Amino acid sequence: MTFNTLPVLRVKPREERRARGGHPWVYSNEIALDADAKAIAPGSLVRLDDAQGALLGIGTFNPHSLIAARLLSNEAATIDAAFLSRRLRAALRLRERCFIQPYYRLVHAEADGLPGLVIDRYGDVVCVQCNTAGAERLLPELLSALTDVLKPRAVVLRNDSPVRALEGLQPEIRLAAGSLDDGPAVVEEGGVRIALDLLEGQKTGWYFDLAGARALIAAQAKGEDMLDVYCNSGAFALTAAKAGAKSVRGIDRSELAIAQAVQGAKDNDLNRIAKFEKAEAFPALEQLQSEKARFGIVVTDPPNFVKSRKDLGPGAKAYRKLAKLAAPLVRPGGLWFVACCAHLLPGEVFAKEVAIGISQAGRSGRVLYSGGAGPDHPVHPHLPESAYLKWQILQLD
Amino acid sequence: MTFNTLPVLRVKPREERRARGGHPWVYSNEIALDADAKAIAPGSLVRLDDAQGALLGIGTFNPHSLIAARLLSNEAATIDAAFLSRRLRAALRLRERCFIQPYYRLVHAEADGLPGLVIDRYGDVVCVQCNTAGAERLLPELLSALTDVLKPRAVVLRNDSPVRALEGLQPEIRLAAGSLDDGPAVVEEGGVRIALDLLEGQKTGWYFDLAGARALIAAQAKGEDMLDVYCNSGAFALTAAKAGAKSVRGIDRSELAIAQAVQGAKDNDLNRIAKFEKAEAFPALEQLQSEKARFGIVVTDPPNFVKSRKDLGPGAKAYRKLAKLAAPLVRPGGLWFVACCAHLLPGEVFAKEVAIGISQAGRSGRVLYSGGAGPDHPVHPHLPESAYLKWQILQLD
Repeated sequence: MTFNTLPVLRVKPREERRARGGHPWVYSNEIALDADAKAIAPGSLVRLDDAQGALLGIGTFNPHSLIAARLLSNEAATIDAAFLSRRLRAALRLRERCFIQPYYRLVHAEADGLPGLVIDRYGDVVCVQCNTAGAERLLPELLSALTDVLKPRAVVLRNDSPVRALEGLQPEIRLAAGSLDDGPAVVEEGGVRIALDLLEGQKTGWYFDLAGARALIAAQAKGEDMLDVYCNSGAFALTAAKAGAKSVRGIDRSELAIAQAVQGAKDNDLNRIAKFEKAEAFPALEQLQSEKARFGIVVTDPPNFVKSRKDLGPGAKAYRKLAKLAAPLVRPGGLWFVACCAHLLPGEVFAKEVAIGISQAGRSGRVLYSGGAGPDHPVHPHLPESAYLKWQILQLD
Repeated sequence: MTFNTLPVLRVKPREERRARGGHPWVYSNEIALDADAKAIAPGSLVRLDDAQGALLGIGTFNPHSLIAARLLSNEAATIDAAFLSRRLRAALRLRERCFIQPYYRLVHAEADGLPGLVIDRYGDVVCVQCNTAGAERLLPELLSALTDVLKPRAVVLRNDSPVRALEGLQPEIRLAAGSLDDGPAVVEEGGVRIALDLLEGQKTGWYFDLAGARALIAAQAKGEDMLDVYCNSGAFALTAAKAGAKSVRGIDRSELAIAQAVQGAKDNDLNRIAKFEKAEAFPALEQLQSEKARFGIVVTDPPNFVKSRKDLGPGAKAYRKLAKLAAPLVRPGGLWFVACCAHLLPGEVFAKEVAIGISQAGRSGRVLYSGGAGPDHPVHPHLPESAYLKWQILQLD
């Protein structure tokens, strides 16, 4: 749809300031919504004007969402496959600057100028998440742009994120283009190759956001005994094993994750070093403590303990409890990695709970590294809250 | 002085909780200070007991400082050269895990169990800062421990930090042990070798805290034109030039810094690539903007704009102004590095001012990396405020 034929919405007086200041969102209460506007199909492209009729930008619109408009451009622009190709190409150039191998988050939504859209790249297979109605409606143009820019062998649509419900979207997982007949998607990291089942596995298959942290742990792993709790399909465990860990023990509650990790260990000839078992994290940590087990490196990458505001108190305490349970398993001088993917929990609260937990375990130490996701998960400068991930690597005495 | 002969101070009822919880400080109002206690020489070792007479720890004491006691140990311990050797050895082992070459902050005060003490290592030369009366009084034992652990060719005492005034200490710069007759201290980073004048140069000679950021910038520098504002003695500039930057232009207000940078460029055969000039940052940025100069990478590592709480408002705005002046000089798709060493300015305020500034410059972009100091500047878990440094690398459209 060309620029001139788009529906025009007016932002209320003075409510245009955030968007003029560079923010990519306009909230529903900031737009003058008459019956016509409310009847616009969710995800449609619209033109947003300020109260004086001056162009504010072009974006996608969802009358049923609190974040009613997400800006794609501050200028007159036709949002078509060519437009998406330009954004994809810019995102690709950035990743190619930062990564040697073609395994990364290729598009990270607003920060890459593509609101609501997440694309992970596994070599010649890409995995797409449309997290807004706007991203969903642009899918045909996106598929065309992906062919133009990357010519992927297969495009998997992994539309099962719970955030879709906020946009009135149904879950859907399917092969959207190409085929996987020539073999599954494969990811390579730290010298380990893992085949991924993008249609069945957890989320988009691989947690690229912790790749930088895994590289740091792997660099410290040589000759160490390592424990990897919440190991999922073994990304930390296998990259550390490949880097020369003496032994790695992975624990996860998911049978599927353990099966994938065991397979990954076999496929990379690491099955004598890396062992995996199905178990609940907290009881397993307690059991190891009662056995006086000690590891040179303990990795804990728990699920989100703070899924809603009401979880803030107990969720924060869960990180403290994790610290109390994990710290005793770290041998003196050893390392503990702990991640927090709870975007509702401020980084300083997470850090404080970690500090209290290790002290309550009778241990002291120091934070060596504090980090977040890597440069393939860029942060929109006006959406700092999108930097959901924080982690620390501590050395304990 | 052995443990049993130390003066004993009592912490007031309930005020022992922070220290028991792992915090390394006791404030003056938390200690029962009678005339005897007030007469203890600043920096003396003391034994701290709780109100019930149970041992809280051994630490250094300064009756004239708000932070009256800094704990060295939570257990009965004799604080002597052997004790300091053990702490030094642990700090050294950690650095040797994280760094290939012997150039790093070897001791980072409380986080390394040595309150008030900072030691930078330049191969066989070390540079010591005693920032508290306690660290100052332990200097003889420290010199003995350094000989034991490292056998340095020279120990330079660089006691000119302004924080010493809070402890009633005078500035003092001198060679404390060994000799520099066989040549000055040398630092190597990113393939660049720089001779340092530890007795005359800025601070301890080299800002190790930004080494990780410099490595990231150098990794992106190949073929780029780079501008390095507040370049000091050229650490960013020279490592980027060595990594293949097409041209590097460094600016600093200090004649001494520029002279060192020029010398460094010559010594590393980079003087055709890296040029340096003495200039004030803001006017120089304005001048470059009026010339419509564009760079693939712009580095801005300004001095602390927020030296006291009253600077918080104007200091924050100075980062915004810096963003407004620097962003236009970044070519589309290029990178901007910006650091903030103001420990009083919260990271989120710094990030917000950066975001506002680039938007006011009419630019959009994304934060690729957010970081702080590296693992040779570990953070005490209970002193998160000691993580003073924050920086971002943004890509601008």
